[in-house]
Amino acid sequence: MKSKELISQAALKRLPQYLRFIKEHNDLEFISSTFIAKELGLNPILVRKDLSLACTSEGKPGNGFEVRKIIIEIEEFLGLNKVNNAIIVGAGKLGQALLNYQGFNSNLNIEMAFDVDENKCDNKKIFKLEKLKNLVQNKNIKIGIITVPKEEAQNVCDIMVSSGIMAIWNFAPINLKVPENISLKNEDLTTSALILLKDFYNKNK
Amino acid sequence: MKSKELISQAALKRLPQYLRFIKEHNDLEFISSTFIAKELGLNPILVRKDLSLACTSEGKPGNGFEVRKIIIEIEEFLGLNKVNNAIIVGAGKLGQALLNYQGFNSNLNIEMAFDVDENKCDNKKIFKLEKLKNLVQNKNIKIGIITVPKEEAQNVCDIMVSSGIMAIWNFAPINLKVPENISLKNEDLTTSALILLKDFYNKNK
Repeated sequence: MKSKELISQAALKRLPQYLRFIKEHNDLEFISSTFIAKELGLNPILVRKDLSLACTSEGKPGNGFEVRKIIIEIEEFLGLNKVNNAIIVGAGKLGQALLNYQGFNSNLNIEMAFDVDENKCDNKKIFKLEKLKNLVQNKNIKIGIITVPKEEAQNVCDIMVSSGIMAIWNFAPINLKVPENISLKNEDLTTSALILLKDFYNKNK
Repeated sequence: MKSKELISQAALKRLPQYLRFIKEHNDLEFISSTFIAKELGLNPILVRKDLSLACTSEGKPGNGFEVRKIIIEIEEFLGLNKVNNAIIVGAGKLGQALLNYQGFNSNLNIEMAFDVDENKCDNKKIFKLEKLKNLVQNKNIKIGIITVPKEEAQNVCDIMVSSGIMAIWNFAPINLKVPENISLKNEDLTTSALILLKDFYNKNK
């Protein structure tokens, strides 16, 4: 079995992009790394290398990979064959958008949301923040998403950690402090915007 | 003057994080790269190198950088001294969340939103999609954000491009096709979630 730890973060970011592209072409029987590379504007050697890290099946020369098979292999590699239950704290616009986001499929299942105001929208999955600890522990949920204003984020983060949450996805524009054993991913939308703007200015100067 | 193109994407992602951290400590007169590195859990040599790429002022040994000065320098380097006007198409939950997002400050000013239903929320900045071309051209807006369902995204993208939008920030979970001269940044929330999950599973196996 190939080690899942030897893959770079950059390759890990490209794999879901390949997967999405291959799924968009699941009417084909075979798909080649050259075709994927061309359509996604990437280097074919890079695509071939990434796929060889994630997949055990080998492309047939001239044909490429069997579409049905490579989809399953990439999904397994990425852990997409598991359902990951999560909670969200902050049932404002962003929290509600994530509750309804199409892209997660079954890989990230946001079971419940919490807010100081449990009547924030007519979604039955929203509970008062005080109930978080009990519900999270009863349901053994390990993943928490933070979509509260930045002033509240560290407090919410501390409540999550003390309730047994082990992985935190933070959308508040603030640097959170967590213990070393906790996984933290900051979703910094401002940084994303900056990367786009920088590319735009480089192309148009 | 230092070239702004020699910096890596990775460093470009870290600079807004430093900036945010330094601004959170603007009660200090001086701040050292060692302190920034320690608090953000990064390598001090890396932080020093990143800052030297973006800033012309040099830290004083023992003191560090002048806080007031280094904030201005990083902002200038990142182009944050400009106001970037943008439009958004798709005034659902995610679109509304971005319209209200705290983190952009004045760097990304979302002037208007468009939707097939201009009464989607009680925000006066929402217009019918047919008005996009005229308004974008009159106001000379070059940046567009897509927050429509994935089935609509390519169509919206094509409308934007034909209206003169040059930089597109796409939140729909689909690979869009754009001409080569257009800047495109896909905000793939599923990929972000996967990176968090992978780290979580690595730490907890």
